Amino acid sequence: MRLGGKHLDAGGYDLLGVVTGSEGLLGIVTEITVRILKKPDGARTVLIGFASSEDAGECVGKVIGAGIIPAGMEMMDRPAIRAAEEFVHAGYPLDVDALLIVEVDGPRAEVDHLIMRLEVIAHSCRAVTCRASRSEEERLLFWAGRKAAFPAVGRISPDYYCMDGTIPRARLPQVLKRMRELSETYGLAVANVFHAGDGNLHPLILYDANRPGELERTEKFGADILRLCVEVGGVLTGEHGVGVEKRDLMPVMFSEADLNQQQRIKCAFDDKGLLNPGKVFPTLHRCAELGRMHVHAGRVAFPDIPRF
Amino acid sequence: MRLGGKHLDAGGYDLLGVVTGSEGLLGIVTEITVRILKKPDGARTVLIGFASSEDAGECVGKVIGAGIIPAGMEMMDRPAIRAAEEFVHAGYPLDVDALLIVEVDGPRAEVDHLIMRLEVIAHSCRAVTCRASRSEEERLLFWAGRKAAFPAVGRISPDYYCMDGTIPRARLPQVLKRMRELSETYGLAVANVFHAGDGNLHPLILYDANRPGELERTEKFGADILRLCVEVGGVLTGEHGVGVEKRDLMPVMFSEADLNQQQRIKCAFDDKGLLNPGKVFPTLHRCAELGRMHVHAGRVAFPDIPRF
Repeated sequence: MRLGGKHLDAGGYDLLGVVTGSEGLLGIVTEITVRILKKPDGARTVLIGFASSEDAGECVGKVIGAGIIPAGMEMMDRPAIRAAEEFVHAGYPLDVDALLIVEVDGPRAEVDHLIMRLEVIAHSCRAVTCRASRSEEERLLFWAGRKAAFPAVGRISPDYYCMDGTIPRARLPQVLKRMRELSETYGLAVANVFHAGDGNLHPLILYDANRPGELERTEKFGADILRLCVEVGGVLTGEHGVGVEKRDLMPVMFSEADLNQQQRIKCAFDDKGLLNPGKVFPTLHRCAELGRMHVHAGRVAFPDIPRF
Repeated sequence: MRLGGKHLDAGGYDLLGVVTGSEGLLGIVTEITVRILKKPDGARTVLIGFASSEDAGECVGKVIGAGIIPAGMEMMDRPAIRAAEEFVHAGYPLDVDALLIVEVDGPRAEVDHLIMRLEVIAHSCRAVTCRASRSEEERLLFWAGRKAAFPAVGRISPDYYCMDGTIPRARLPQVLKRMRELSETYGLAVANVFHAGDGNLHPLILYDANRPGELERTEKFGADILRLCVEVGGVLTGEHGVGVEKRDLMPVMFSEADLNQQQRIKCAFDDKGLLNPGKVFPTLHRCAELGRMHVHAGRVAFPDIPRF
């Protein structure tokens, strides 16, 4: 089968979205055609430091609200900033609680105009520092810190566990506050890297696998973070998927009706359950059983799923 | 079930695209949440006339190729231009074979800059006339002609049959030429309105339902146009859907494997076939049969479908 294409509507069902991100459960993709976007004429990046993640969160909302569409908008918290700066020397401010890295691209005149608008918005949100790149070298250096954030955290901790959840952007301060509380409860430090424009959070839980029980505690902390994402109106994953890791958390996010319907889709592609078994669904029913469940949908339960 | 949302990825299958445009075959949508986009600061529209549809088609390709994203880009052929102008007096040129109506929006400075670039591209494609709106009133008048094109055609013909197919933009001249030939063969006139940016064609076949056999000839002509769309790499519909009208043309577009897979999706939502029966699929198999077809997919055929 070939799915998608240049056209907007082809008749028949649009299966492209179903197969994209289906984690290998529906079929084997043997060929992908992508559209190459035109490289923008130019790009500039601005580093904006804040005394609190609340201020940074407000700034993200105001940038989006002003109709500016950044090419990238990343946020790092104090532990992530410090780790990255010590590793890469990107010129990040060390006296701030949150750092926003915002890139805009397009024709030169438009980019300069947008940078000016970003600076005005930043100051209206009590930015402590605000520095726009003045050259391509400086722009790349600003990004080098962010891009090295994961290995940088690897330098300060024997191991780290990278989580991936998505939250409504406006809930970031609340989520960061709750995460600090959980961090104390579990006795494990966290560094946060956040695709702020998309609301996609990557908390890195720092731990030491050689200390007995610490990995298990880390995994529990991670599951708590994902439950927190769902509680504030977010979702279990941003880009890393569900797989085995988040499989047993699916009922936190989806109702029984949702999960049954998703399994019927699975059966519509793979009625023998040959593809990537054991992933994504906490309980995978036989396809023949699902037919019966559909008829008696009101009485179906998930007896085997641990509830969190 | 709730599908979609603000997040990019929720875990589980993305069923939003499947249900969107499923023509009522998968379920009943009871609530839709939409995102309101910010109204652009300003907009201007340019009318570009060409001596041939080839020139107009080239211009569309060059505009898209230059990275300009118009807010609208419509094309009308000579019969559609004439009917609209006589009805609305929008100021359309009457001595051209194809008219492009291109709108760009955004901040004022950007809009003026884009209009200038559009004019340069138009002249490089041998435009005969090129006129940009100088006021909001003029912009609305330019659109009034296009928006009245359907009723305008209704004034010059007792009846018309509106088709809806999509083609790769570059194939427009070829498709218009073939449509003129079919028009002569069937003895029926056609006026063409085309969402040029999307490649979505709306040929209006002019006929008189009171003349015996003319509706049947019109329907055959319409089916030929849709087959032509698929032949040049396009699809059966742009925005009007399949329904009953194009149901028997589905095998022109989709293979047996495609149609079987689509019916399995239908069964995953509606295994009793209660929803909108008789639409979209030329032969709808019972869901239990589809299970068997899946196992013996190599041997399945569509014995009941008329081949065109």
